[in-house]
Amino acid sequence: MRDRLVESVPNVSEGRDRAVIEALASALGEVPTVRLLDVQSDPDHHRTVFTVVGDPDGVADAILRLFSAALPRIDLRRHRGEHPRMGAVDVVPFVPVRGVTMADCVDLARRVGREVWERFRVPVYLYEEAATRPQCRDLAQIRRGEFEGFAAKIQEEEWAPDFGERAVHPTAGATAIGAREFLIAFNVNLGTADLSVAKAIARAVRGSSGGLRHVKALGLSLGERGIVQVSMNLTNYKKTPLLRVLELVRSEARRFGVPIVGTEIVGLVPEDALLQVAAHCLGLERFSPDLVLEQRLQSVLRD
Amino acid sequence: MRDRLVESVPNVSEGRDRAVIEALASALGEVPTVRLLDVQSDPDHHRTVFTVVGDPDGVADAILRLFSAALPRIDLRRHRGEHPRMGAVDVVPFVPVRGVTMADCVDLARRVGREVWERFRVPVYLYEEAATRPQCRDLAQIRRGEFEGFAAKIQEEEWAPDFGERAVHPTAGATAIGAREFLIAFNVNLGTADLSVAKAIARAVRGSSGGLRHVKALGLSLGERGIVQVSMNLTNYKKTPLLRVLELVRSEARRFGVPIVGTEIVGLVPEDALLQVAAHCLGLERFSPDLVLEQRLQSVLRD
Repeated sequence: MRDRLVESVPNVSEGRDRAVIEALASALGEVPTVRLLDVQSDPDHHRTVFTVVGDPDGVADAILRLFSAALPRIDLRRHRGEHPRMGAVDVVPFVPVRGVTMADCVDLARRVGREVWERFRVPVYLYEEAATRPQCRDLAQIRRGEFEGFAAKIQEEEWAPDFGERAVHPTAGATAIGAREFLIAFNVNLGTADLSVAKAIARAVRGSSGGLRHVKALGLSLGERGIVQVSMNLTNYKKTPLLRVLELVRSEARRFGVPIVGTEIVGLVPEDALLQVAAHCLGLERFSPDLVLEQRLQSVLRD
Repeated sequence: MRDRLVESVPNVSEGRDRAVIEALASALGEVPTVRLLDVQSDPDHHRTVFTVVGDPDGVADAILRLFSAALPRIDLRRHRGEHPRMGAVDVVPFVPVRGVTMADCVDLARRVGREVWERFRVPVYLYEEAATRPQCRDLAQIRRGEFEGFAAKIQEEEWAPDFGERAVHPTAGATAIGAREFLIAFNVNLGTADLSVAKAIARAVRGSSGGLRHVKALGLSLGERGIVQVSMNLTNYKKTPLLRVLELVRSEARRFGVPIVGTEIVGLVPEDALLQVAAHCLGLERFSPDLVLEQRLQSVLRD
């Protein structure tokens, strides 16, 4: 495995046309040092989420190839889907995985952002950790107004793009490029059909309403199973670890007399997030990934 | 990382002479597909434990090179140490790590055992999973009598070696070669100075006195910290997992009103043993190592 790994999870406004999705996937796969790990298309959202991992330069190159492939194939003037969007390539986060800092990913976002404007004439907003202004930290705020409203929004003083002129690309709109921590999608299933319990717990644990800083949470019904779910995004598992989130959900569920009947991780989880859980549960006095046979082997193989 | 990995942990009867230990380490390091992960020498025991990992053929080759280097350098007639031993290269276990079955490791033990006799004229006992007779499953039983008693023991009907004649090698004695599961050394520290508590808990959890099948346990005093420890070897973490062992120790400690103040893993632990703990603590409804980013990446890189 390589020493320096960055993940990118580009969100593209095409979730229906298989030929287009495949063309985009193969553009991402053209760089030999970058691997396409996952492709999730949602026809209702009319949106596809790709996951690639590789060395920083390789991933930057793959993202530029994605723009190259997407721009002639996607026309937002004719795009209707449930998911909010403002661009053909709507959002591109860079995520540190291994041997790479958040500052490296912020640099990567800036470099790729400048290039996207210069080569493709798509205006770019730097978001989250790469944001240059408070109003750009939150992706939802940038995207408000969507493609249809952006021709006007981009003219407003506070919504000048970080790279580009005060006009959207006619078919590709605008793009948000940023840096963030790895996002873990973690759901906790509760032994009740009462949706209000899941909603109350979601409210208690999410950062926006006073809960844990790096947790976003929603209460949902799982109709077919007759139970409810607290569906969460952990936006920084290093500062707000998985197990602490679970224990807080458990403690809130207790006051409703509702048991946790199961949990799930949707998508991928970094190894160190799970090793952290194991070290915590075992109560290890010292834990280092170097204790793990495979990791020791890995570090020896790198010598 | 390679697809097929075997570990071997040869125990050699030399723990004092740095030059000899280094000569043995470099013999083990001669095979390019095998890595020496760890060397632990104990001068009181007069014994060194090497840990190597690699592909099965490479590891077999490395072990034969170890014999080649050890035989001219170690003379058991002059060896005095605290640890029981019967051979210059005393014990050689093969351990499945990845993409390799226990049956593969049993084959490896037989192949290497035959070769050790044919090339070096050291009689070989196959032990544990590779044993051909009940009395050879337990290493301690084979070794009883030690080097000094072995000239007589090897003549007894039931102690004929698996490979070799009914006489020990004059300076190198005899060797046990076998196959076993990965061994995890796991210690639980208790918040009391009362050694009898640690001893009682050790008795309760170890397989030999009615506890968990694949646990060996001992009660020890940690003099300098003023506490006691249940020191365990988990000989099959797949069937007797880490967390179940810890929970049983916790439950036994409770009846003495003694808290667990910490735990430690000594040496290496396979990744899946810790992922198993994490999946259990999180209560995941489905868990597959493929959820782990690094493992997904690994499997993609192998394509």
